[in-house]
Amino acid sequence: MFVTFEGADRSGKSTQAQLLRDALEAEGREVVLTREPGGTELGERVRALVLDGPQMGAWAEAALFAASRAEHVEEVIRPALDRGAVVICDRYLDSSLAYQGIGRGLGVDAVLDLNLQVTGGLLPDVTVLLVLEPEVAAARAGRPDRLEREGAGLQGRVAEGYLELAERFPERIVVVDAARPPEEIAEEIHDRLRQRS
Amino acid sequence: MFVTFEGADRSGKSTQAQLLRDALEAEGREVVLTREPGGTELGERVRALVLDGPQMGAWAEAALFAASRAEHVEEVIRPALDRGAVVICDRYLDSSLAYQGIGRGLGVDAVLDLNLQVTGGLLPDVTVLLVLEPEVAAARAGRPDRLEREGAGLQGRVAEGYLELAERFPERIVVVDAARPPEEIAEEIHDRLRQRS
Repeated sequence: MFVTFEGADRSGKSTQAQLLRDALEAEGREVVLTREPGGTELGERVRALVLDGPQMGAWAEAALFAASRAEHVEEVIRPALDRGAVVICDRYLDSSLAYQGIGRGLGVDAVLDLNLQVTGGLLPDVTVLLVLEPEVAAARAGRPDRLEREGAGLQGRVAEGYLELAERFPERIVVVDAARPPEEIAEEIHDRLRQRS
Repeated sequence: MFVTFEGADRSGKSTQAQLLRDALEAEGREVVLTREPGGTELGERVRALVLDGPQMGAWAEAALFAASRAEHVEEVIRPALDRGAVVICDRYLDSSLAYQGIGRGLGVDAVLDLNLQVTGGLLPDVTVLLVLEPEVAAARAGRPDRLEREGAGLQGRVAEGYLELAERFPERIVVVDAARPPEEIAEEIHDRLRQRS
């Protein structure tokens, strides 16, 4: 099973990904928890390049994330899935659809094609979308990176973009209200995964 | 006019690109001479990552080159073409078709789609393919990079791949024998460009 977490920055993705790992491991499952951009040596270098590198256009950004993802799938995700592990990934392809496809206007279909091409068509079984009002997310602390510094305009389009994706891919994307205590959210996610598997 | 140079390493692409620039500038044309991977700040960083970075799969490599190319087109090539300059580029999209599409077996169509996607469909008007026996190219000196260290197997497939591309895109690709004195080759290229423009 391949589960991904998506949502705005500071919507609690990393926390929830860890809580889900703990819950599944407590049931005796092998779990591989990983993240994007990153997850491989190449991915970490691409992450640094995209988040704090030179100014770049939307297609360059989309292709860099796709390169990182291709390597991540080949080195980490597919081998783990092939041996029967659960893979939990903090951000995956829907981040590119929301940020570059919708936020930057490249189009969902074009960015989806690019990503399916380079990953051999690997889609998650379940994607948990953590939804938080942009103002609430912004109020949570953290050093802003290049994408965040672009401010409320991009972040607002991304937040709306994620909801568009949830409407478009309802068989895969589960929408969860992230403005609640982490344990409560974790319980809901775990329940909803059980219903689907 | 957008002219690209292609061929194996040490087939004389850089030398011929410079000689063509000199010849066109002598005719009073504005010429922008650039290269891939590279040509922008992002591109130089991607170049370093691909040529001497961590091991990576074929799709990651293809997507990194595509990211570099997207930025190169947006920052350098399109603005120059838009103001009427001749752009001469040392390697462009056909390098990806030959190395990743054919050499690494991703397929010409898949890699072409990826590159047309990220560049807004920008193809060269003329591509000069410098053809040299692989043994002759290998005998010319130079510090080998990661792709070169993979040796004769990949280089042989790439050399054959370029010839396949020339057969497939005869309206765009001009094949030139590179095993001659540089000035003689330069004269032939200049003549053949004049015939086409």
